[in-house]
Amino acid sequence: MKVSILGCYSATPRTITNPTSQVLEINNQMYLIDCGEGTQVQLRKHKIKFSRINQIFISHLHGDHFFGLIGLISTFSLLNRPNDLHIYGPKGIKDIILLQIKLSKSYTKYNLFFHELESNESELIFEDDKIAVYTIPLKHRVYTNGFLFKEKPGLRRINIDAATEKNIDVCYFNKLKQGSDLKQEDGTVIENETVTFDPLPTQSYAFCSDTVYNEEIIPLIENVDVLYHESTFLEQDIEKCIPTGHSTAIQAATIAKKANVKNLILGHYSTRYSDIDLFKKEADTVFESTFLADDGLVFKF
Amino acid sequence: MKVSILGCYSATPRTITNPTSQVLEINNQMYLIDCGEGTQVQLRKHKIKFSRINQIFISHLHGDHFFGLIGLISTFSLLNRPNDLHIYGPKGIKDIILLQIKLSKSYTKYNLFFHELESNESELIFEDDKIAVYTIPLKHRVYTNGFLFKEKPGLRRINIDAATEKNIDVCYFNKLKQGSDLKQEDGTVIENETVTFDPLPTQSYAFCSDTVYNEEIIPLIENVDVLYHESTFLEQDIEKCIPTGHSTAIQAATIAKKANVKNLILGHYSTRYSDIDLFKKEADTVFESTFLADDGLVFKF
Repeated sequence: MKVSILGCYSATPRTITNPTSQVLEINNQMYLIDCGEGTQVQLRKHKIKFSRINQIFISHLHGDHFFGLIGLISTFSLLNRPNDLHIYGPKGIKDIILLQIKLSKSYTKYNLFFHELESNESELIFEDDKIAVYTIPLKHRVYTNGFLFKEKPGLRRINIDAATEKNIDVCYFNKLKQGSDLKQEDGTVIENETVTFDPLPTQSYAFCSDTVYNEEIIPLIENVDVLYHESTFLEQDIEKCIPTGHSTAIQAATIAKKANVKNLILGHYSTRYSDIDLFKKEADTVFESTFLADDGLVFKF
Repeated sequence: MKVSILGCYSATPRTITNPTSQVLEINNQMYLIDCGEGTQVQLRKHKIKFSRINQIFISHLHGDHFFGLIGLISTFSLLNRPNDLHIYGPKGIKDIILLQIKLSKSYTKYNLFFHELESNESELIFEDDKIAVYTIPLKHRVYTNGFLFKEKPGLRRINIDAATEKNIDVCYFNKLKQGSDLKQEDGTVIENETVTFDPLPTQSYAFCSDTVYNEEIIPLIENVDVLYHESTFLEQDIEKCIPTGHSTAIQAATIAKKANVKNLILGHYSTRYSDIDLFKKEADTVFESTFLADDGLVFKF
């Protein structure tokens, strides 16, 4: 699992920082999460091939999380993208994009699918044989979702030595990978576990931005491998959290601890702070395995 | 007159180039012309104070000319801009901006005025005591205007030596600056020209992007001090001009020559060319005083 931070600062883009956008690479698939202004240039800087982005998840309709979407869609079109593109985001996102496409007479040649979200309950919004993506309802000033990416268990892995010893033909390997026992011609049964290893452990990633401190999300994100949780403010500015719909680093760390996650990445820093190390310093007092997102960083777990 | 090129490349923003946007500074006022994605960051790089931008002119609704507008409007709001902001652009631009403001619940605290354009004739769209701005109807794939900025003549300038010699009190200077003669108590008249100089010469700037070669604009831009004319293609690709609604460098230079402008700035280069000097080389064969726009350049005339 790899998380490339294209941008992780709140509010306005600046010469040195970018608004929220990140690429999650899991199970060889890439998912773009949020798309602030400038995301397409950040993708280029990260040398991420545009053709590998087929799903985009937008948490909410504040500009620092989606103003780059229309530009990316438009660029995909100019570059003659063939693949379908799926956009998951709050109700209204389709109107915003289609109005601009209509007025600029720039209809995409590829298929563009919108999956508009309006439920306040967690729901399964995307699924294939490798991964399932669920919403994490967040509390912010506008309708907002985080996203939970859960790998599905992979196939069992053949224990080559054991399989060779038992003289198993390769044509049975697929069956073994799927967990079946093997019935041999003489009637004896080779039990699956004797010739296979368990599937690789699955991983999970939870993206939670933007939100106030909200313990209701804990059951949804419990035990995830990596939680990205916004930490817009330091503790000295905690009184700004409720009116603006944001969290402090300590609140993010508290959620991480209570949800028993393995790793926490902080981000969405207010640009009022010049030293983001203070976010880690504060979070460390509550939760051990805390990392600081920063534009250009790539995390591997 | 100062023209700051924030971006001057066509189509998609890249790590090294930006889509169209420029700031014209004339008579101590600043005007933003077009606003591709990333314009707000380019303004910051140029250290142009956001508060000095009170009028924005959008030529047409292709993304590389306006996708940065919503972000700029939103940032102005986050920074608690007090000034009114006036947007001049094609019909539809108001819907695009207001839909996004509505859905993000991010109403601006400052007054936002839209002046939507739909005429196919040149019209006066902005005027104050120092400048007048006219549209230049262009021919492109969608409804497009260029913009002509014409300084109004300033006040006459006092010839201090002559005025002192004639013993004129400073309280009459304003009257003299406005061009009046002075009738003295003894009945004699001091003729204005004997104690004043002509106003400083006025300047004019024409922005023409995007457009096919179109001689109909010549009467509108005749004799301007500076013409910015798009040159998307080199002559080798002239057959692309009509289908895409663009011009070559030689076509831009031909318009400059026929309109007898003083200086030509080329821009809106297709990103297919790695060496933009070729645009100048071609234009030079037709028109002498040609300059190449490039991101970050500032022209003073």
